[in-house]
Amino acid sequence: MSATVSPLAPKSYPDMPAVRGVSMSTASAGIKYKNRTDVLMMVFDRPASVAGVFTKSKCPSAPVDFCRANLPHGVARGVVVNSGNANAFTGKKGRESTALTAKSAAQALGCGENEIYLASTGVIGEPLDATKFSGVLADMANSATGDFWLEAAKAIMTTDTYPKVATRSAEIGGVKVTINGIAKGAGMIAPDMATMLSFVVTDADIAPAALQALLSGSVEATFNSITVDSDTSTSDTLMLFATGAASADGQSRIETADDAALASFRVALADLLKDLALQVVRDGEGARKMLEITVTGAESDAAAKRIGLSIANSPLVKTAVAGEDANWGRVVMAVGKSGEMADRDRLAIWFGDVRVAVDGERDPDYSEAAATAVMKQEDIPLKVEIGLGNGKATVWTCDLTKEYVAINGDYRS
Amino acid sequence: MSATVSPLAPKSYPDMPAVRGVSMSTASAGIKYKNRTDVLMMVFDRPASVAGVFTKSKCPSAPVDFCRANLPHGVARGVVVNSGNANAFTGKKGRESTALTAKSAAQALGCGENEIYLASTGVIGEPLDATKFSGVLADMANSATGDFWLEAAKAIMTTDTYPKVATRSAEIGGVKVTINGIAKGAGMIAPDMATMLSFVVTDADIAPAALQALLSGSVEATFNSITVDSDTSTSDTLMLFATGAASADGQSRIETADDAALASFRVALADLLKDLALQVVRDGEGARKMLEITVTGAESDAAAKRIGLSIANSPLVKTAVAGEDANWGRVVMAVGKSGEMADRDRLAIWFGDVRVAVDGERDPDYSEAAATAVMKQEDIPLKVEIGLGNGKATVWTCDLTKEYVAINGDYRS
Repeated sequence: MSATVSPLAPKSYPDMPAVRGVSMSTASAGIKYKNRTDVLMMVFDRPASVAGVFTKSKCPSAPVDFCRANLPHGVARGVVVNSGNANAFTGKKGRESTALTAKSAAQALGCGENEIYLASTGVIGEPLDATKFSGVLADMANSATGDFWLEAAKAIMTTDTYPKVATRSAEIGGVKVTINGIAKGAGMIAPDMATMLSFVVTDADIAPAALQALLSGSVEATFNSITVDSDTSTSDTLMLFATGAASADGQSRIETADDAALASFRVALADLLKDLALQVVRDGEGARKMLEITVTGAESDAAAKRIGLSIANSPLVKTAVAGEDANWGRVVMAVGKSGEMADRDRLAIWFGDVRVAVDGERDPDYSEAAATAVMKQEDIPLKVEIGLGNGKATVWTCDLTKEYVAINGDYRS
Repeated sequence: MSATVSPLAPKSYPDMPAVRGVSMSTASAGIKYKNRTDVLMMVFDRPASVAGVFTKSKCPSAPVDFCRANLPHGVARGVVVNSGNANAFTGKKGRESTALTAKSAAQALGCGENEIYLASTGVIGEPLDATKFSGVLADMANSATGDFWLEAAKAIMTTDTYPKVATRSAEIGGVKVTINGIAKGAGMIAPDMATMLSFVVTDADIAPAALQALLSGSVEATFNSITVDSDTSTSDTLMLFATGAASADGQSRIETADDAALASFRVALADLLKDLALQVVRDGEGARKMLEITVTGAESDAAAKRIGLSIANSPLVKTAVAGEDANWGRVVMAVGKSGEMADRDRLAIWFGDVRVAVDGERDPDYSEAAATAVMKQEDIPLKVEIGLGNGKATVWTCDLTKEYVAINGDYRS
């Protein structure tokens, strides 16, 4: 947790309503941080449907292995998350640590260990001493309350400068349902995964397979379209739980993701995931500006996304944004290195509404002053038209500042 | 050209012998920089064999297009290089600029325009006014001298903090030949290409096809194994010229690259290219340390190289090196995100001779003090054993410092 809050932080937090069927509590176990909470427990009143997407890293953390093994079971009774230690690359000790945590949580909740989900975030390679919190899980379960989302978001922060929460409502078959989510960043953030940690809960009644399809279908344009530093974490975990409490209001259980009754829910879920994903980018380590990159006219949507990420991950583009320099030459470079088809003589580039390049050269009507005015904004839209096809994609990133270097030259994360 | 020379700069420059058959001159055209040379002309006494490798960018500069078109002709009489403007993404104006330069150079040297090679480095997207130097090419050709390598290297610098030169000798059929080279960096440097600009000349007598095979065969383990910032330039150009002057000493012309007489030359060329490539890394923008990454035990050499580059391009690894932090957890992360096969429980990592991780966890005998001592060195060897096969590769990079951000937040390159 940094002393200085990102200038891109939300100006206010939404009122987070309780989601029926889930309660939470936090604890201060002193795993790494002092004077703050570092353990979160989520408790489901009855078995909740569960879906998850995880890092594609070939060296995933022990909790990621643990969650993947439990996921086919499809139901969850509890979640335990700690910050300060990622329990990654910890070998046999790491597996012992997840086993102890799961056993303690299952005893506290009176459920099977395969109904427990775990996540850890923080330093890689240090053994995680789960005895620091395994003994308090029973107390945490007993004291869990529903109106605790902002505190839950705080307990999972590492280098984040603000907690990340979002809420949406939707209707399924005329019954109102709520979706709440929390997330944490703020470095080692790259797509092709979920982000580091995010937990979303709804009171809707949706079967596990449908829930997984909904989640997998929403992640590509949200969490998988953000990047802070191109570095994919060993711990990336995005989970979606459905408590089913809305069935008490007459919501019929949804069995398949193509059910027409999900129209409103699907939109709300995608909107919430995008909200959380953008909050992660806006708290990227050292971030002072957010860049929204829209690529159009590529050969395919996938090609557009690769071009977008090539731009978003370019240190030279990101430092130019930090320097408020409308340096579109570096955008050309990043398009060129993406490996996707591009025709220099058809390329056009806009910062905001200012077209800076067209037909393979500087726009003859280009105004440096107008482009510079765009670069002075906190939120900078960049549009690149490739001119070859109909593929399009939008990705988001932040600038690369001296503070990113300072944070990561000092902090062993 | 920066006021502060990289701490990793060579302590001294080699005496660069003249290479028979080539002479050079420089001029100050004021293209962007003041009070320094910014145009280099190389003149070959008689048609020299030529080979080249160029950026794989889909948006190459006008000079790259020009060189590629001439290369099948196979012989060169002159080279014109300017710094301060890359003549990239300059559309029709860019082609007019290369045409004017080539025409002026060909007139000055009394040769065809298809015997002229061009390169430009500097800002992208600004039209290059070739009239600033096209008028002086005849004078430059007349005043060219052979003993001018260091000055030639200085004229092509942009954000480089020191000129990069190297020389080697070899023998072909008992006849001594010389190879001299110059290069420039220092940002927008990533493999999958040559680096930005490098020109190498030998007095050996080697046919163009053989010369190209020699160059292409040497680039993968040298220039294509370095990265400063993962950003591939639009202008990357590495050219090798053979004047053939050694034929006066009785060297028989080499027609094919598999000629056994090339054994010594091949080693010398690879060694010279590696020397120049490492000089580029050591002058990476803001660099304070060089990291040599050796990956062993991967599924293939190509897999080892991709893992090595994943580590070398990771901002989190590079900032840890800047912070002198033996943060091997970030190395695990970078191995995991490379997409190549890796087994967490077989991975081992060394900084220098200090094994920090083994068998999927921290080395039980790991000494933080010993690892930190390695990190305080200017040159840091990092070894990663994957434990799966026999693939191996070595790549080089520099650290990511606040100075990189400062240089690229201010400089429109």
